[in-house]
Amino acid sequence: VNSEIIGVGTELLLGQIANTNAQRISQRLAEVGVDVFRHSAVGDNLDRMKEAISEALGRADVVIVTGGLGPTPDDITRDAVAAVLDRPLERHAGLVTELKEFFAGRGRDMPDSNLRQADIPKGATVIEPEGTAPGFYVEEGARLLVALPGVPWEMEQMMSKAVVPLLRTRAGDAATVSREVLGVGLGESHTHRQIADLVDAQTNPTIAYLAGHGLVRVRITAKGPNAADALALIEPIEAEVRSRLGQSAVPGHGSLAQILGDLLRAHSATVATAESLTGGLIGAELTKAEGASDFFAGAAVVYSSETKASVLGVPRAVLDEHGPVSGQTAAHLAAGTARLFDADLGISATGVAGPADHDGEPPGTIFVGVSWRHSSDSQLVRGYGDRDNVRGIAVTAALDFARRTLATG
Amino acid sequence: VNSEIIGVGTELLLGQIANTNAQRISQRLAEVGVDVFRHSAVGDNLDRMKEAISEALGRADVVIVTGGLGPTPDDITRDAVAAVLDRPLERHAGLVTELKEFFAGRGRDMPDSNLRQADIPKGATVIEPEGTAPGFYVEEGARLLVALPGVPWEMEQMMSKAVVPLLRTRAGDAATVSREVLGVGLGESHTHRQIADLVDAQTNPTIAYLAGHGLVRVRITAKGPNAADALALIEPIEAEVRSRLGQSAVPGHGSLAQILGDLLRAHSATVATAESLTGGLIGAELTKAEGASDFFAGAAVVYSSETKASVLGVPRAVLDEHGPVSGQTAAHLAAGTARLFDADLGISATGVAGPADHDGEPPGTIFVGVSWRHSSDSQLVRGYGDRDNVRGIAVTAALDFARRTLATG
Repeated sequence: VNSEIIGVGTELLLGQIANTNAQRISQRLAEVGVDVFRHSAVGDNLDRMKEAISEALGRADVVIVTGGLGPTPDDITRDAVAAVLDRPLERHAGLVTELKEFFAGRGRDMPDSNLRQADIPKGATVIEPEGTAPGFYVEEGARLLVALPGVPWEMEQMMSKAVVPLLRTRAGDAATVSREVLGVGLGESHTHRQIADLVDAQTNPTIAYLAGHGLVRVRITAKGPNAADALALIEPIEAEVRSRLGQSAVPGHGSLAQILGDLLRAHSATVATAESLTGGLIGAELTKAEGASDFFAGAAVVYSSETKASVLGVPRAVLDEHGPVSGQTAAHLAAGTARLFDADLGISATGVAGPADHDGEPPGTIFVGVSWRHSSDSQLVRGYGDRDNVRGIAVTAALDFARRTLATG
Repeated sequence: VNSEIIGVGTELLLGQIANTNAQRISQRLAEVGVDVFRHSAVGDNLDRMKEAISEALGRADVVIVTGGLGPTPDDITRDAVAAVLDRPLERHAGLVTELKEFFAGRGRDMPDSNLRQADIPKGATVIEPEGTAPGFYVEEGARLLVALPGVPWEMEQMMSKAVVPLLRTRAGDAATVSREVLGVGLGESHTHRQIADLVDAQTNPTIAYLAGHGLVRVRITAKGPNAADALALIEPIEAEVRSRLGQSAVPGHGSLAQILGDLLRAHSATVATAESLTGGLIGAELTKAEGASDFFAGAAVVYSSETKASVLGVPRAVLDEHGPVSGQTAAHLAAGTARLFDADLGISATGVAGPADHDGEPPGTIFVGVSWRHSSDSQLVRGYGDRDNVRGIAVTAALDFARRTLATG
């Protein structure tokens, strides 16, 4: 079974938002073994929408369209689908009732324009609305066309409740499973030299890698009749990749923050962060997944030298002699936040996000610090790229320095 | 002049990354008045790449392809472009020299596979590499095909240095300019009722709106012979949109954090945050843009009741009586962080990100607090959706509560 995903909305073509819906739907399709061969995005233009939908239906077994199901005159996905399939739109009585109830329940009048949301192509099956916009799907012979709203949360709910179950039936028990091996401090080119022959030799699983924010992610993806069989294909390849990457490979699965969280749980330890250039991103990353209260004690963002001293107790002599962007300051910051939040582990990052120099140091200069069991240490890391990228590299370097400390301590 | 953007890479189709390159390129093209009619993404598959490139060249004046220019066997964009244009690949002597120098400068051997990066289609113009991957462009009659690496930072540099100047010449002085009006606390449907007739009546400028994280962004986009003329078309429409949205419209331009930053600069005031469920996201948002040290004093992330008391001085009696998720606690958190960081303004957020209940409150319960000139206040906000969404709504609500306080105080 293969598929294409079409995003609808002029906001995509103007670059106002990234097409994260295509990303999320692709992830869900991979779980059920449906190959994705193309993503497209078109604006709120009837002719170009019809062209894109019609082409995709000519190539793929499954076509998923997101966006353009709202109540405004711009929302014309229903019309485009109806025209391509040559089926009239019909007003769905059940949906009209639900729409009226939705507005009545909130004590608001329903604008007449919202009634358009109850129109679906003849013969289509309704996917129940999560907000006001219903989705629908149409089966034409072996082909399946699914239309979902563009609001990410509504789309996700409908994927889980309606589309994934439908596709699971169609795809049989086939499954695509991926495992990621993280490597820290390696370039894409270096990674390639280590594993190039593996990449060339592999067809199932396949191996791909991506670099960003100081991290290389080697993704191993297998297809099999079910998830367990696919995983069994991955495991020996994963072991080989880890052996080739050596010390750079991060043991465990998940994001760096999740892997550090697991280590902290295993040590029954808590963590606090002291952040300068990262502005709170390390804390936000550590608390992204549920259950962070098991190990997360707190974070202090100290931007100025004054607060580095007053809030986290970095000695003024250290700040004067070595500067706020220094290994010594990073080590004191890590110890200071562990003390303030009574945490076992302290993590710090201080540096220059750019674009201007700071404290005599160029953009990309980063010092990360760790304090663990009353001993503190720091490392210099060279970031590059724009402000976002330097901050991302600092987050990676700080989390990885802490992970290494716990893994060996 | 109209264009299409093609992203290359199986990682896109597996959902491992979002196609943010298409977003960024679209933004840059809008600046120079080049319309984008379609985005596509295809995997590292020669036939499907050729098909996508060939179709796009059949429709658009300008086609920009990103990705697939690296040194690995997966990287076959050069081959696909050469095949579609029916031009042989030629090894570029200058690029070979630069590649060797790049590796020599880092004290590393160049893998032979990297030489493939010096191959470009006959007659193409090289775009100088920012890493090891060069880009190139080919002009065929009126059509322009541009190939850029997929690494976002490299792509951005090449867009700025080579592609935007090239397109500026082609597009003449035409410009597309957008202005965004932010509305807080409005649904998309409510916004629509306020401005539906404006949306229907407008062709230049056009009006679109997007909702997410508790914020509606109404985007007004005009085309004109130059930026000043385009802006002149926007201004009366922007004034009308603001008048229709009334109190919900946020005065100023830019993100909420930028608008709050401007207000703080105008008051010569500083800000500190106290964050529970947001884990540092408010601090990260306030420090995203350069120059935040003008107004940002610091952030304290206090996840547990213990640290709310010990670090930020929330009275234990308040925590016991009202709970950590309460308006009283939010107000004390805001005052506590202002005190700790010696800031004029304190902002706080406490609540339940989910998926489980916490402190007897369901996911989505959010209290935001503000402390300004020795007076503290709090507000209850109802979030919804998944953990990411609830945290995003809390960031919006906290920043907006602070903005309103400063605007009226």
